[in-house]
Amino acid sequence: MEAAPVIILVQPQMGENIGAVARAMVNFGLHELRLVAPRDGWPNPQAEAMATHGAEIIRHTKVYDTLTEAVADRHYVVASTARDRRMNKPQFTPPEAMAEMGSQQQQGLKMALVFGPERSGLSNEDIALCHAIVSIPADPAHASLNLAQSVVVLGYEWWQRAASESKKPLHETENPPAEHGEVQGLLDHLEATLDKTYFFKREEKKPRMWQNLRTTLLRARFSSQEIHSLRGMIAALEKGWRKP
Amino acid sequence: MEAAPVIILVQPQMGENIGAVARAMVNFGLHELRLVAPRDGWPNPQAEAMATHGAEIIRHTKVYDTLTEAVADRHYVVASTARDRRMNKPQFTPPEAMAEMGSQQQQGLKMALVFGPERSGLSNEDIALCHAIVSIPADPAHASLNLAQSVVVLGYEWWQRAASESKKPLHETENPPAEHGEVQGLLDHLEATLDKTYFFKREEKKPRMWQNLRTTLLRARFSSQEIHSLRGMIAALEKGWRKP
Repeated sequence: MEAAPVIILVQPQMGENIGAVARAMVNFGLHELRLVAPRDGWPNPQAEAMATHGAEIIRHTKVYDTLTEAVADRHYVVASTARDRRMNKPQFTPPEAMAEMGSQQQQGLKMALVFGPERSGLSNEDIALCHAIVSIPADPAHASLNLAQSVVVLGYEWWQRAASESKKPLHETENPPAEHGEVQGLLDHLEATLDKTYFFKREEKKPRMWQNLRTTLLRARFSSQEIHSLRGMIAALEKGWRKP
Repeated sequence: MEAAPVIILVQPQMGENIGAVARAMVNFGLHELRLVAPRDGWPNPQAEAMATHGAEIIRHTKVYDTLTEAVADRHYVVASTARDRRMNKPQFTPPEAMAEMGSQQQQGLKMALVFGPERSGLSNEDIALCHAIVSIPADPAHASLNLAQSVVVLGYEWWQRAASESKKPLHETENPPAEHGEVQGLLDHLEATLDKTYFFKREEKKPRMWQNLRTTLLRARFSSQEIHSLRGMIAALEKGWRKP
């Protein structure tokens, strides 16, 4: 289960919740936890106290400043969110998401499952970094699960899938999608270039335009080779703009 | 969703866990919580503090001295346990258990899902009262889930099933199984009679023999009418023994 998805908590607030997440992860064969800007810093004694048999996970938890950095070595990233965000991304039920992640795993790709802060959930900015959304079906009158409880449900579905799946032979795709860090390099390069070329025209329209564009580009799952070509193309276009 | 299963916690230890159970129940359309001999009595301030949007459930939680009393008005009772108990009862995965409970619900039958104390889980004595066992698949190295996390997984599966199931017309079976209280009346009557007739012969062999016998009788899902007939039969047999 080396290639199980890593769990990423963005700006988690309560240490107890971080500990409860680690505890749940152990039950379902999930071993790596990453935190983005935890509110109370790190390490966190409350998290350790709550983790019980997940103490090993807490000991190895890494902390990042931004979600972009936390997913830099990942190929496939799924955001957990209760609300429908009306973004142009696949919206999965938990079994659908795990089937998809299982198929990514078969290709030897590295994955992450991302959870937002307790109160607010993931920002649209964070979700824009992800390839797909998974939502846990629940009573519409109380649709928002506790952070650790969401990890329990998705961990359970991950284990279900991993345990029930017949051992298919691994097959590497010919052109595997690049790690997120490479994609981010492409996006940063493109954004800087578009800024320089006044693509966005009015500054207040940029966030929405750029988010849609990023979503489109992420969905393509470019390979390293493709990203290399695209960046060459962008550089060429940029030079072109300077000429006339 | 009036006929959703009630959740029964047998000898729960931590108030926090009771609260977390209530909180999880609300997300998945489960509304009735029963406690059997909670360690720290009832009401429990820790449970209330942890319940958040499950406060209403905590307010209406009923407490019983024994599991027998807590399931007296139920028709179908499923025990949640991590370990294989080697009892002659159906052993379900969560989706299987919920499919079965859904089909009981269709027949208008009342159900319960029973969870044991945090450390030890349900006793064999308690499981003997149940019609089936459900176990949550997990990493064998860490197969034991936290109490509230078990409720999360089974609640989630319950909601999944209830939400996805096409609205089939309700149909009452001609001879619905009796409530558990009636079955218990039969069992008590039978046990007293067997004691009087020295059926068990050696006192130290009785627990095992009687447990097997109860398991067999529970599995039959007798109707009220059948229980009435059986008790008449037992009474007749008892009188018969006195005659010779």
